[in-house]
Parts: sequence; C-alpha cells; structure tokens
Amino acid sequence: MPHIPIAEDLPGPRGLMIFRPETAKALNELAEILLRGPSTLTQAERELIGTFVSSENDCQYCQSIHGALAAHLLNGNEALVNQVKCDFSSAQISDKMKALLVIAGKVQQGGKNVTAEDVERARSFGATDLEIHDTVLIAANFCMMNRYVDGLAAWTPLDPDFYRQRAAMLAEHGYLGSAGRR
Amino acid sequence: MPHIPIAEDLPGPRGLMIFRPETAKALNELAEILLRGPSTLTQAERELIGTFVSSENDCQYCQSIHGALAAHLLNGNEALVNQVKCDFSSAQISDKMKALLVIAGKVQQGGKNVTAEDVERARSFGATDLEIHDTVLIAANFCMMNRYVDGLAAWTPLDPDFYRQRAAMLAEHGYLGSAGRR
Repeated sequence: MPHIPIAEDLPGPRGLMIFRPETAKALNELAEILLRGPSTLTQAERELIGTFVSSENDCQYCQSIHGALAAHLLNGNEALVNQVKCDFSSAQISDKMKALLVIAGKVQQGGKNVTAEDVERARSFGATDLEIHDTVLIAANFCMMNRYVDGLAAWTPLDPDFYRQRAAMLAEHGYLGSAGRR
Repeated sequence: MPHIPIAEDLPGPRGLMIFRPETAKALNELAEILLRGPSTLTQAERELIGTFVSSENDCQYCQSIHGALAAHLLNGNEALVNQVKCDFSSAQISDKMKALLVIAGKVQQGGKNVTAEDVERARSFGATDLEIHDTVLIAANFCMMNRYVDGLAAWTPLDPDFYRQRAAMLAEHGYLGSAGRR
C-alpha cells in the first residue's frame, strides 16, 4: 500500500505524478528526451538499459513496464529482454550494447565505479560520446525513478498483461502523451 | 578527467549540461521545482536533504555545492551543514527534519527500505503527505545527479571558495537562471 494516498487504479509513477503534477511534467520531459528523442541508440536499446538498471535495483514496476516496452519494440521478443536482465553478456545484442550495459551496471552501483577503461571499451565497439553520456544519464535516471516508485510504495500490478497493454500505449503516445491516459 | 570532452572551466553538471542541453533543461526544471518551488519545507531544509544524500553517495561536487547553498541559506552556518552530514540525529534541526532525513537515507540505499513506520514517525512530527513525497523525490533526484556527475567523472574543484561563490549565484538566480552563468 502506498505511503501517501494514491487511488489503487493508478499504479507505478502515474499515481505519484497525479499527486504532484508540477514535478511530473519535468520527469516526463526528461524521459521523453532520453528514451524517445533523436538518438543513434534505438528506442529498444534505451529501454533495455532502463530495464536492466531497474532489475538490478529490484524495482518490480519499472523493470516490468520498461521490459514490456522493450519487448514491444523488439516485435514481442520477451525472451531477449529476460536474457538481458539475467545475463546480458550471453544475450543476442551488439558488443557495443554489452559495453554500454557494463557502464550502466556500474552507474547503478555508484557513479565512481565507471572507469576510463569501461568507456574506452565502449568506444572500441563504436560508442560515441553522446551514447556514453546518454547511457550514464539513462542509468542514473532509472536509479531515481526506481527509488521514487519504491520509496513511496507505489501500486505494482502483478498481471503481465497490464504491462503489455500499458507498453503499447507508451510506444504509441510517449511519456508525455500517456501521462493522463488510462 | 571527464569521460567525455568537457572544458576544464565547466565543473560539475554544468559542463555535462552544455554538452547535452536538451536533457539539461528538464533536469534544471526538476531541480527548480523540487528545491526552490512553493513548499512548506524551507529551501535550506531541501538543500540539506540533497546535501546529506550526496554525502552518503560520496559525491564530492554535489555535497560541496548543495552544502554551500544550504549554509548560504542558513546565514553561513557551515557547522550545521557538516553536522547534518556527519550525524544528523545530534544536529540542531527539527524532529520532523530528522525523521525526513531517515527516509532520505533509506531512499539513498534503495526505495524498498522505506517502511510504513518511518513514514508514520515523520507524520507524528507534523510532516505532510506532500513533504513526504518531496523528501523521497529529492533523495531520488540526488541519487540520479550524483551518478550523472560521478559516472561521467565531471570536473570537481577542490577550493571551498568556488562552491561558496557558486552557491551565492544559485541562491540569487536559481537552477534555471544560473545554468548559463559563470
């Protein structure tokens, strides 16, 4: 049960955002730019980074919704999403993505863990400065959102179909466009 | 040395934000609303929460600049800021602030650590739902910013006067108004 009064039909950050619309706008703008804005990383790659970090932070809502969104963008490949969460080094993703996930995992533990060698390795597989920047900020952003959702004990549905349906809406309307939608 | 090319005269998140102005705008809007917008928590109290979380995350830049800003807002009381970082339970702050710092410290470790008892305790000292919400989101926001700054190894000045001067500018112009200023 949430730590502040939130209607039960408003799970995850949505209920928190209706409680505090002023901060919701900035949070959704940040997500929209980072996860759906122009980038040489695909939307699926960016959602996989967020899903992996949410899984490492043990945030059930965020890993479920962003995992469902990543799968939606990957033609329903839920097995790949689960593989990235369990052991990305053996997943069918590019070496660049694996190197970026190493960086994301270190950010999740704490920013100082990222080494010059981690960054050089990502560069050797073709990662650009902007991709490295965005990987760090996406991982950091999920460290915020995971704590926001779990720190206030937001409602977390158990039915996978809830996440599949919400993911399809997010894919169509984006983070800003879905904020007020059921 | 930063992991991406940033001019040495642009320390902390400022250099990162000039590198990526699209995300900078949303980040600064979030900080402006959370830390300086209308609230029953004083600006100094909110900066103390951010300073404490940054200290727990061992982020030198963030604990220095937000600590300097808290001290600036507290008529230069740097001793109080240091006491909050070292052991807030013995600091000259309200019982409500101590209870909110307990929540912030748990969010820093991971959102699931916050218990209904922690929240009830804060309420018993007069904390409102909005104050509890904002404490969790401020703590989560600093968990993002600390990782952003340290994950990209942003320039971190050592001179305390740098932070005192920058804090005075932030107090006057805010997070949005200071973004482009030297």
